[in-house]
Amino acid sequence: MTKPNMLPPQIPTLNTARIETLADGVFAIVMTLLVFDIVVPAQQLTDELGGLLPALLTQIPNILSYVISFIILGVFWVAHHNQFFFIKRTDRTLMWINIIFLMCVSLVPFSAALFSSYGTDQVAVVFYDLNLIAVGLVLYAHWMYASRDSHLLESPINPEVKRTVIRRILLPPVLYIIAIIFSFISVEVSIFIDILVPVLYVLPNRIDRQFRAPRNEVME
Amino acid sequence: MTKPNMLPPQIPTLNTARIETLADGVFAIVMTLLVFDIVVPAQQLTDELGGLLPALLTQIPNILSYVISFIILGVFWVAHHNQFFFIKRTDRTLMWINIIFLMCVSLVPFSAALFSSYGTDQVAVVFYDLNLIAVGLVLYAHWMYASRDSHLLESPINPEVKRTVIRRILLPPVLYIIAIIFSFISVEVSIFIDILVPVLYVLPNRIDRQFRAPRNEVME
Amino acid sequence: MTKPNMLPPQIPTLNTARIETLADGVFAIVMTLLVFDIVVPAQQLTDELGGLLPALLTQIPNILSYVISFIILGVFWVAHHNQFFFIKRTDRTLMWINIIFLMCVSLVPFSAALFSSYGTDQVAVVFYDLNLIAVGLVLYAHWMYASRDSHLLESPINPEVKRTVIRRILLPPVLYIIAIIFSFISVEVSIFIDILVPVLYVLPNRIDRQFRAPRNEVME
Amino acid sequence: MTKPNMLPPQIPTLNTARIETLADGVFAIVMTLLVFDIVVPAQQLTDELGGLLPALLTQIPNILSYVISFIILGVFWVAHHNQFFFIKRTDRTLMWINIIFLMCVSLVPFSAALFSSYGTDQVAVVFYDLNLIAVGLVLYAHWMYASRDSHLLESPINPEVKRTVIRRILLPPVLYIIAIIFSFISVEVSIFIDILVPVLYVLPNRIDRQFRAPRNEVME
Repeated sequence: MTKPNMLPPQIPTLNTARIETLADGVFAIVMTLLVFDIVVPAQQLTDELGGLLPALLTQIPNILSYVISFIILGVFWVAHHNQFFFIKRTDRTLMWINIIFLMCVSLVPFSAALFSSYGTDQVAVVFYDLNLIAVGLVLYAHWMYASRDSHLLESPINPEVKRTVIRRILLPPVLYIIAIIFSFISVEVSIFIDILVPVLYVLPNRIDRQFRAPRNEVME
Repeated sequence: MTKPNMLPPQIPTLNTARIETLADGVFAIVMTLLVFDIVVPAQQLTDELGGLLPALLTQIPNILSYVISFIILGVFWVAHHNQFFFIKRTDRTLMWINIIFLMCVSLVPFSAALFSSYGTDQVAVVFYDLNLIAVGLVLYAHWMYASRDSHLLESPINPEVKRTVIRRILLPPVLYIIAIIFSFISVEVSIFIDILVPVLYVLPNRIDRQFRAPRNEVME
Repeated sequence: MTKPNMLPPQIPTLNTARIETLADGVFAIVMTLLVFDIVVPAQQLTDELGGLLPALLTQIPNILSYVISFIILGVFWVAHHNQFFFIKRTDRTLMWINIIFLMCVSLVPFSAALFSSYGTDQVAVVFYDLNLIAVGLVLYAHWMYASRDSHLLESPINPEVKRTVIRRILLPPVLYIIAIIFSFISVEVSIFIDILVPVLYVLPNRIDRQFRAPRNEVME
Repeated sequence: MTKPNMLPPQIPTLNTARIETLADGVFAIVMTLLVFDIVVPAQQLTDELGGLLPALLTQIPNILSYVISFIILGVFWVAHHNQFFFIKRTDRTLMWINIIFLMCVSLVPFSAALFSSYGTDQVAVVFYDLNLIAVGLVLYAHWMYASRDSHLLESPINPEVKRTVIRRILLPPVLYIIAIIFSFISVEVSIFIDILVPVLYVLPNRIDRQFRAPRNEVME
């Protein structure tokens, strides 16, 4: 504030609108591309299996992979969304953390395709887990950088809120690390954990109270 | 309002901008991906049929599927859009209902591809109908949750408007259930209903009066 | 205004933000999907032709088709954008005109792929022209409906501006109709017109003066 | 200002919101489409190589190409974003420069696919470099046009900021020209430069100070 500044001080600093638009665009595309893993059965397969219904049933692992990948991307989108509830300004570093974050997110359709093609192969499961760990850790770095000294925030964050957010962000990476460890014993347990994580996050929990909208008791 | 709140009360609650951006992104992509069902005829097919025109005519079912799927997605986009005419705030539950809604919407390109590949197979038609029923029911849940006690709304909704919106949301699922029932008798009737639904919705009707813009009689 | 209205009169009418977001999303995807027409030469082709450079040269018609389709989509995007300079409110009918407009726009990647695969076939050229005529005519309907009685506008439009906009919107369909007529004599002339249209539009012209930003002479 | 103007002077001139939305959409899609270069290994390849891990390792060049292309697109997105920190109005010419810019950006997935398929072929490397030079030069034209006489700007730009922005914009094209020159001696050196450019840009530097958000010392 006391240093000379080449820009007139009243010019607003970089806002977060375009980062959020880019992120929403990337999430929308990545989520939608997941559907390409589910393939329309070839006529030949349908003939072999004696009908479209049994042919469609071969797509169940792919549909399951679609659902859990879509939901875990939803988890990360909600988490990113919630961070920007507090973050109101951006700088170059935060933009780049976002781009790295989106680079990891954009890899998910590949990891999910690998997962649904090689479902029982430990390598595919571990790759999928590593991808989601990377997404989670970059999102953690995003929060740590942005919340560090509040210069990018609307107002200082209550330390308890800060800790709760951190716990929530770090939970998926921790669970995916556990999934990786278990994959050395049983790939099935590992897959079970991968299914469990999105389920855990869809259920409501403590941090929600922070975001609950106050009742609107007056009619405007 | 009387409970202690960790966030200063003047901080705005989560607004709906990013949900709407994500939804618009997903709809834009899903609508655009539908075009991949229409394929450029291979040179070999064109040679066999004696020209590009007869080869293109083989794509008519796919073009029809493109048009009806595009329009029914338009119906759901307009319905989603209209709900956010009333909804001004969001919470975690509403975000998750939206993500589940978008997960069902993103499945439509697959269902449409199945429908245009196996048009006369009951399984394909029923799958398509079930997908659209799911979209409709999640949209219904979206409205019931958001309009429940008006804490997410701009202002309380007139009960008659509420009922009209509900009737409009539930009509497509009901018609698609009828289409499924008819599919056991005749797949053709079932397909006819699937074509009819988007047509019904494009025509103007009662609820429109709610959204009609007042004439702007003054020049500002 | 004199009829009873179920919504409190002060509630704002449907704004155009989401239509514009959906349209921008569809245009962004359609423009980007055009690149899929340009294919990386297979190793076998490269070996046959004795190098990557001659193999790449086989893609020149596809690159040309990419450029002219991208630019004509840009023409329509700019025209759509300019209309919303005047349009400030929407109703159900305008939303549906937009969805039909986007349905025609989303078909362009298919038409462009057909055009670059069967470049010298009259059927492919006519299909491409018909697609762009449809886009232009729906955009014309959009403008006629919105500007009809100014209830969707910020303020009444100067009749001369209105006529100039109409002339600009109708010019591409007229040129594409001429291209179709010429296609019966010579497909090459027809393709030449298709290349000419985007070129004409990129050049600056009279209507631009309407949108020229006033100089900002004060430093705020 | 002294010429008669058909639009009432108080009507706001074309703002930049939709250009930015279109650009964000195109960038989001182009970035996401890059992932299609990384392919799930076919079962046959996995069997041949004796496992999924060695089969995945064949994708390392594609993953490297994904990362460097994603980041260089991030560089251009940030540069575009930063220009609109200063640009507040648009005219037809600027819209068309943007569309040409996006046309070059949309070609990147093709260039990147060519690069990862024919990594050691000079033609592929030069094509990739030429594509990115085109992106950089159009972005330079964008800045020169917009900053020329400040009629599209919020306020006049400090000449030093202007020069710094120009230096930053021109650096990648210059480096890619050097990469092309080196490609005649050694394709490896050329690829090394292509990897270096994104790395250089992710590191923080002088212009950042312009965009640094002032500390928020008051709690609102």
